[in-house]
Amino acid sequence: MTLLTETIAKISPLDVAAMEAARARQDMLTKPQGALGRLEALSIQVAGITGAARPRLLKPAVVVMAADHGVARQGVSPFPPEVTPQMVMNFLAGGAAINVLSRHVGAQVAVVDIGVAADLPAHADLIARKIAYGTADLSAEPAMTRAQAQESLEVGIAVANELIDAGADILATGEMGIGNTTPSSAIVATLTGLSVAEVTGRGAGLNDSGLKHKVALIEAALALHKPNPTDAMDVLAKVGGLEIGGIAGVMIAAASRHVPVMVDGFISGAAALIACALAPAAQPYLIATHRSVERGHQAVFTRLDLEPLFDLGMRLGEGTGAVLGISLVQAACKALDEMSTFGEAGVSDKEA
Amino acid sequence: MTLLTETIAKISPLDVAAMEAARARQDMLTKPQGALGRLEALSIQVAGITGAARPRLLKPAVVVMAADHGVARQGVSPFPPEVTPQMVMNFLAGGAAINVLSRHVGAQVAVVDIGVAADLPAHADLIARKIAYGTADLSAEPAMTRAQAQESLEVGIAVANELIDAGADILATGEMGIGNTTPSSAIVATLTGLSVAEVTGRGAGLNDSGLKHKVALIEAALALHKPNPTDAMDVLAKVGGLEIGGIAGVMIAAASRHVPVMVDGFISGAAALIACALAPAAQPYLIATHRSVERGHQAVFTRLDLEPLFDLGMRLGEGTGAVLGISLVQAACKALDEMSTFGEAGVSDKEA
Repeated sequence: MTLLTETIAKISPLDVAAMEAARARQDMLTKPQGALGRLEALSIQVAGITGAARPRLLKPAVVVMAADHGVARQGVSPFPPEVTPQMVMNFLAGGAAINVLSRHVGAQVAVVDIGVAADLPAHADLIARKIAYGTADLSAEPAMTRAQAQESLEVGIAVANELIDAGADILATGEMGIGNTTPSSAIVATLTGLSVAEVTGRGAGLNDSGLKHKVALIEAALALHKPNPTDAMDVLAKVGGLEIGGIAGVMIAAASRHVPVMVDGFISGAAALIACALAPAAQPYLIATHRSVERGHQAVFTRLDLEPLFDLGMRLGEGTGAVLGISLVQAACKALDEMSTFGEAGVSDKEA
Repeated sequence: MTLLTETIAKISPLDVAAMEAARARQDMLTKPQGALGRLEALSIQVAGITGAARPRLLKPAVVVMAADHGVARQGVSPFPPEVTPQMVMNFLAGGAAINVLSRHVGAQVAVVDIGVAADLPAHADLIARKIAYGTADLSAEPAMTRAQAQESLEVGIAVANELIDAGADILATGEMGIGNTTPSSAIVATLTGLSVAEVTGRGAGLNDSGLKHKVALIEAALALHKPNPTDAMDVLAKVGGLEIGGIAGVMIAAASRHVPVMVDGFISGAAALIACALAPAAQPYLIATHRSVERGHQAVFTRLDLEPLFDLGMRLGEGTGAVLGISLVQAACKALDEMSTFGEAGVSDKEA
């Protein structure tokens, strides 16, 4: 039994008794029933995930998986591939958006080199789990071997388990990898059955001709590799990315440990499709955070029956939307736990 | 010159130079230009409001204006009117949703008795500015005299000025007042020209027949009082509420002091219509936070050219949506201020 199959086998359904207790308490709190809207639903979901009727989420961590993509040399991004290691150094120095927003919400940033195409200096905050110096160019050959794809999932599982062992009680997913909307669109097209054009956007800012080139490249890659839509590992290996597998592993591990996982933007969405194809029971542990500008994102939500918490027109990745979502989920749990009931506060309930 | 006219006269346009500096800095930060979406726009707006190119918002406060409504005895709410003072006591004890969410984002809760129909015990955290024991029943007579309406605005101005003098650098609006969606719908219908049915919802949870009764009551009140849509003070007096005037005063004062003001749900939206009718220059100082379930809310956004930050299906009031928005605006300002530039971080910019 591999770490992956073992982890998947551990995922159980949400705790119905905890959800019922949370729902019953919500209806006794000093507000019209349902008046906190999505916050009430979130608190009940987290009760089900954690098994606690009044859950608290005290130690958030965002996992930023960094990796390169052979296809990035094919003009699918306006940024050069050397930006991936440069941004990893920026993460370690604390100067990127994910650092600022994580400080704002009190989340630890766990930066993982799962496949950056450069040797990175050792750093106390860098989790070095490089599987390869980037993937192969999926426009010409499979991005990864099947063994590498499996390893990327297991690196994600191991990293998530270590964070949870160290006390993290809510995880968020993030990534850095120049070119990574290309494998993401390839995955989303394959697993949803939608056309490449329907699920491919401008990434970090392609112009019209760049977008046209990207769509044609992905269509050709899918025609070349014929990834099997009923075999998510095959899809991940042939047209995916190391950080995408890593994120999917984080989601699977979080579900196996009863920890909610905040899903960031389009790349994390592609990873969620892989995770839920491999482990359908992981779905209720996912909380979609924001609707990205990237056009394929809605296809992910539809496929996985998820509804994002907000739409702020973001398209940065790194986990930036996911960490903003952490604050909302914490707020939802605090409202459930800390608000007074009608009885405690001596407030008259709704007239019968 | 009254406090109101004096305050309105002090409102100046946003600081264009600060906005240009903020925009220029956003474009140098280590992310694709525009990738933080609405967060970038928010940071630029706050730069314009405060006059600082890299603003920080360190001391938030939410003003919860509490008042009663004579019309509440006419079956327009499923909750009895005594809930208003009961909830004020709950605010002071720290057990309401607004307390929990304000603690979460680090905001002070300033509870103002501007017109509760009960004598409230003195409390260190209660700002006692009662103008009347609730409004008159607008289904039979004007809710307020014109002098009371003006006083409600000036109480809001005074409270906001005191909070700002004490260091508050971002304000949020909130309210408590059983029955207050009824005057809010009356105001919104009058100032937007839409029909009462189009801007009237279920409030704290009316059923179908309750909603029908509420619409008919508001229609009859507007026919009886004929509030003048070009005279916002007349509208506020005849079909408004003391807390609605108070909130409008907070907005006008915040604008006059270069302080951003987070606008909560439907009642705060009605107050924003009053504020901007009296002081059109206040509009750019407002930040709409959430889209309420209450159906007239969109009419407010359309009229004031505002776009809420999120839609979480909330309909509680108190300022609960507004304080959640505070965290997003703070995050936006921190990203602008704390992120490294491409040059500082040694990250390659987009290829030309």
